[in-house]
Amino acid sequence: MSLLVTGSIGVDTVQTPHGHVADVLGGSAVYFSFAASLFSPVRLVGVVGDDFPNEYRRTFDGRPVDLAGLETRAGSKTFRWHGRYEGDMNSAQTLRTDLNVLAERGPTIPASFRDSRFVFLANTHPVLQRELLAQLERPYLVVCDTMNLWIETARDELIETLSRVHGIIFNDGEARMLTGRANLIDAGRAILDLGPRFVVIKKGEHGSIVMDRDDLFILPAYPTTEVRDPTGAGDSFAGGILGYLASQGRADAASLRSAVVRGTIAASFTIEGFSLEGLRRADLAGVTSRLAVLRDMVTFE
Amino acid sequence: MSLLVTGSIGVDTVQTPHGHVADVLGGSAVYFSFAASLFSPVRLVGVVGDDFPNEYRRTFDGRPVDLAGLETRAGSKTFRWHGRYEGDMNSAQTLRTDLNVLAERGPTIPASFRDSRFVFLANTHPVLQRELLAQLERPYLVVCDTMNLWIETARDELIETLSRVHGIIFNDGEARMLTGRANLIDAGRAILDLGPRFVVIKKGEHGSIVMDRDDLFILPAYPTTEVRDPTGAGDSFAGGILGYLASQGRADAASLRSAVVRGTIAASFTIEGFSLEGLRRADLAGVTSRLAVLRDMVTFE
Repeated sequence: MSLLVTGSIGVDTVQTPHGHVADVLGGSAVYFSFAASLFSPVRLVGVVGDDFPNEYRRTFDGRPVDLAGLETRAGSKTFRWHGRYEGDMNSAQTLRTDLNVLAERGPTIPASFRDSRFVFLANTHPVLQRELLAQLERPYLVVCDTMNLWIETARDELIETLSRVHGIIFNDGEARMLTGRANLIDAGRAILDLGPRFVVIKKGEHGSIVMDRDDLFILPAYPTTEVRDPTGAGDSFAGGILGYLASQGRADAASLRSAVVRGTIAASFTIEGFSLEGLRRADLAGVTSRLAVLRDMVTFE
Repeated sequence: MSLLVTGSIGVDTVQTPHGHVADVLGGSAVYFSFAASLFSPVRLVGVVGDDFPNEYRRTFDGRPVDLAGLETRAGSKTFRWHGRYEGDMNSAQTLRTDLNVLAERGPTIPASFRDSRFVFLANTHPVLQRELLAQLERPYLVVCDTMNLWIETARDELIETLSRVHGIIFNDGEARMLTGRANLIDAGRAILDLGPRFVVIKKGEHGSIVMDRDDLFILPAYPTTEVRDPTGAGDSFAGGILGYLASQGRADAASLRSAVVRGTIAASFTIEGFSLEGLRRADLAGVTSRLAVLRDMVTFE
């Protein structure tokens, strides 16, 4: 079934202990689309400025990513992010953010995309997430991401958004911050009480927890030791999840488990290279091979 | 096959957000023996002072724990520990430690115990661990625990001990501290390079990692939300592991996976109550039922 993502398209400059890249393609909608397109066609919605390099558009060539919702806004500048990772690379230090076009009005979802059934609202202000959602006709499954900034500065708006989506993806720190619960299982239950049908809690190197009212699934991270650049891991994870669910046309508990496995694997490719370098090397054969590794890693008698 | 543990027997005073107990039975060898005896008879070796309450000895009544190696040293005092857990209870604050008899010479392994095949050397000075090991005739599997103190103050002695045992159990912080590797898979490999055949890395609420040269097993923690007192969790975990391996009479990779599942379940009982209260409620039926929960939690298509 159709899959739509709304999110950022940006130009990133990133330093890690393994190297440095300047002015590379990034942004939540980009990583999401790359990962999701391993499993399903994707409709991308976002805005760039008229400075957006043309070669970045060609990055999607050969992939089932429909750019009809990519608006190039005249007179505006593309979002730019400059970050650094150190030590265990579990979190980024932002050195500079130029919101540019992201500080202006949000994107408009093209008429041809409004019938999308699977939807991912990447991190942005929770009010904008609801405005985007309101442009869709009859979504079957809506999942959103968020960040600590909105928990701190727009808590009530975020809670309102959470009550209108089917699934949400948090990292462990965000889940604890929103709910005030230290235990992540407790935190997950408290989040479900806010309305969504399921919650996925990302724990970085410790993997993820997936909860709905009746199901609890815990998956380790893929055992990558070559972490070169974690940028985009979370959005690739979401892309793998939604891409797989859209390919199955369902979102029951068993499908969600399978989907989170695919998301984990997509993220494992992303962090092995800078920008889209790692994810570009992923294909279905690679996914299948990592799936066997993950399954073997958790099997016991 | 026969299973022997050497470790502390102590009197604990513990505060957690859920309550407070004073002068209760504790110590690594005690938690280990209680947990291991779910699966296998245990031979306990340790020293207490002549102040050791007689009713604590009766705690083992009805369990297959042989106390022939429990020395009551005249004129000495029993080890005492006073600790507090706060917030997420991931680590204890020690308010007071009275080493007492543990600061004197170590225990002697009784002649009748020297043929023990499975051996757990609970945390103590690495030189004492080797002295205890030297008293055994032909151990089949020796596993040891340690702590950050020895990594900091007796690093070379610890590395010597690690080269003489088959398996070691670290927590994540200790594994990183010893190896200088932030990534736990990397840290695990670096530990294997020191000599042991396998390493188990405990990650608290995130479960554990088990590695040998050819196998990688990752298991989440049991999803307990009623954590009342974490004291003894690590030694119960070790007890479940060694107790199960001794009951099987083997220590191959598949058995080790099964054993770590039992250790995880034993620890899940321990943390549900103060002192031995939680573990006392555990039986094989309870273990089997939690095993099904764990298996369901990690299964995917």
